[in-house]
Amino acid sequence: MDVYLDHGASTPVDRRVLDAMRPYFTEYYANASSLHSGGAEAANALAESRKTLADSINAKAEEIVFTSGGSESDNLAVKGVAYGLRDSGRHIITTGIEHPAVLETCRGLEREGFNVTYLPVDEEGFTDPNVLSESIKDDTILVSIIHGNNEIGTIQDLRALGEVCGDQDVVFHSDAVQSHTKTEVDVVKQGLGLASFSAHKIHGPKGVGALYVREDLKGSLRRQIDGGGHEYHLRAGTENVPGVVGYGKAVSLARKSHVKHMVRLRNKLADSLLELPDTMLNGPRGDRRLCNNVNVSFKHIEGESILLGLDAKGISVSTGSACSSKSLTPSHVLAAIGRRPEDSHGSIRFTLGRDNTWEEIDYVIVSVGEVVERLRWMSPFVG
Amino acid sequence: MDVYLDHGASTPVDRRVLDAMRPYFTEYYANASSLHSGGAEAANALAESRKTLADSINAKAEEIVFTSGGSESDNLAVKGVAYGLRDSGRHIITTGIEHPAVLETCRGLEREGFNVTYLPVDEEGFTDPNVLSESIKDDTILVSIIHGNNEIGTIQDLRALGEVCGDQDVVFHSDAVQSHTKTEVDVVKQGLGLASFSAHKIHGPKGVGALYVREDLKGSLRRQIDGGGHEYHLRAGTENVPGVVGYGKAVSLARKSHVKHMVRLRNKLADSLLELPDTMLNGPRGDRRLCNNVNVSFKHIEGESILLGLDAKGISVSTGSACSSKSLTPSHVLAAIGRRPEDSHGSIRFTLGRDNTWEEIDYVIVSVGEVVERLRWMSPFVG
Repeated sequence: MDVYLDHGASTPVDRRVLDAMRPYFTEYYANASSLHSGGAEAANALAESRKTLADSINAKAEEIVFTSGGSESDNLAVKGVAYGLRDSGRHIITTGIEHPAVLETCRGLEREGFNVTYLPVDEEGFTDPNVLSESIKDDTILVSIIHGNNEIGTIQDLRALGEVCGDQDVVFHSDAVQSHTKTEVDVVKQGLGLASFSAHKIHGPKGVGALYVREDLKGSLRRQIDGGGHEYHLRAGTENVPGVVGYGKAVSLARKSHVKHMVRLRNKLADSLLELPDTMLNGPRGDRRLCNNVNVSFKHIEGESILLGLDAKGISVSTGSACSSKSLTPSHVLAAIGRRPEDSHGSIRFTLGRDNTWEEIDYVIVSVGEVVERLRWMSPFVG
Repeated sequence: MDVYLDHGASTPVDRRVLDAMRPYFTEYYANASSLHSGGAEAANALAESRKTLADSINAKAEEIVFTSGGSESDNLAVKGVAYGLRDSGRHIITTGIEHPAVLETCRGLEREGFNVTYLPVDEEGFTDPNVLSESIKDDTILVSIIHGNNEIGTIQDLRALGEVCGDQDVVFHSDAVQSHTKTEVDVVKQGLGLASFSAHKIHGPKGVGALYVREDLKGSLRRQIDGGGHEYHLRAGTENVPGVVGYGKAVSLARKSHVKHMVRLRNKLADSLLELPDTMLNGPRGDRRLCNNVNVSFKHIEGESILLGLDAKGISVSTGSACSSKSLTPSHVLAAIGRRPEDSHGSIRFTLGRDNTWEEIDYVIVSVGEVVERLRWMSPFVG
């Protein structure tokens, strides 16, 4: 049995998404900036997807900037504000559990003379709005806090955090790549000035993402890719028409029933895995956790060995996040919630998709038990 | 009859390209950074395309960095060198006929304290290697010159220009988006340190491009998108696997016979259009012109009116380049070769594809004649 439980890394493109994209490869292939009717058809398709995405987050269509993906969106948001508002201040606030696209960008900005505060999180990965409030200074120009954490599934209370930013008049950005369509993203209620999204995490194509840019910020954001006037002068380059069409279709196919289904599978999987000896759940339980995320530390053994053991049984999972999966340093997210390196080394991320079944989950539970038992039997660390 | 003559703006995706991409949307959809076998399959597909593209320009696979397109590649090249080598100097040399992705990037760098020399070109759009040589200073860190011009089709003598850069030890970048597969790009012979490419100009998908980065430059280039360690740490973000697979397939489908076919059609089209009264060819003739480009100024009338008149007859063309087609300022390229604004306003770019036929060209020739005659009859400018 093949079971894919790495939807946090990427998802299969829905057949209906591919069907929607297909004509834009071979029939409506014009450049959306071209003035002839073919160009207009392409531009209309972009406009329709822009509206679909905007509606899904309570934004206006003209507040959506399409990009090549979540990492580019994060970079555009953080550097865009840093360079665009540098005359107002040089202080940025983020957390220790951000996606590398935010974290590495902040580290780069530090080397350029910006000051960055990395807020601590509690043992479940939550940022305290009071701590955020106290850390905002006169020269703070940006707060960037991930919505649904890509490793441990923690869903921040964006509304409370956004309120703090609003009260103190600081631009608020959130990486909502993992949370979009899985829990509510409402840029108005949550006080967001900027938010990052990605298509391939929600059964859309790779290579497409978006940045929500609140109307009043469009003039102050410095663009990252210079050239033509595409995407409201915020992102030059020929628009990826089929990709954007597929993205819109993927957004339109998201359903609350998928979330409910994943929550049930998630709870079953987590509960069963935690019955194994010497296991710990990383991240919170319940509604404050992404519907599709289970992250468990198996003590005394290596995550990579578990991953390979499961792979041999046809089961695809991650150690840490896929984005850093080829690095050997322990997860910065697990470190931030207080996990010791020896525990975080044995952690596995299972990320569900809407098409996973109960049978698959049963198979995974049995298989993990077998793999973990075998590895522990071989392990020199078991006392 | 529908005739698409805007291949310089974008091309239809070849059916074989789409066929190659399809399984990577729905079957091999893993993140190429994932450690499980699905991830390895995706990574292998990337490696194969990397090799195909590298072979086509006489580079090594590990010198290819995949990006989201030509504009991103240009930005990564120019800003990457500017920020990476700023301690060695702050002088950049380019020309007045670059693509906006290079030109606007250079203008942005000027605002940050870099000095940019915009070399003049002759009336056919050529840069003189001697003038380049004289303009190189002690603090010159980059020369960026477009290979095949996107508006007027001029193919620069990269070998001569590259030799000058090599002699004076300056990094040489070229935007080869329009020239790749249409005339020889050989990064070794042409002394290139960096070169930009795009898939959707050669019957590949939109949203995919590449930057050639010579091995010894990989350490000094500053990346533009921070995050994970993708693309040799030069471009973070989940790799667009289907897009890259399609790009590789598109490169592998390019044939010299296509070039020969386009040259014949091009010559026929240019010769016939120039028989109309008060017309001028923009750019050179013969082998030093892109095989698929015809750019003609029709005096006394507006390019946009010609474009719309042809569109009504099912013929798709551009005024200027698609990238700037929604702007009303006269083409900077036509200005650089000495065209007066009143002449450049009436210029049309016809860009052929390998699937255009003789019948289509005959139809276009007759149609342009009709449209131009009608517009001139209506025009107040005809004396």
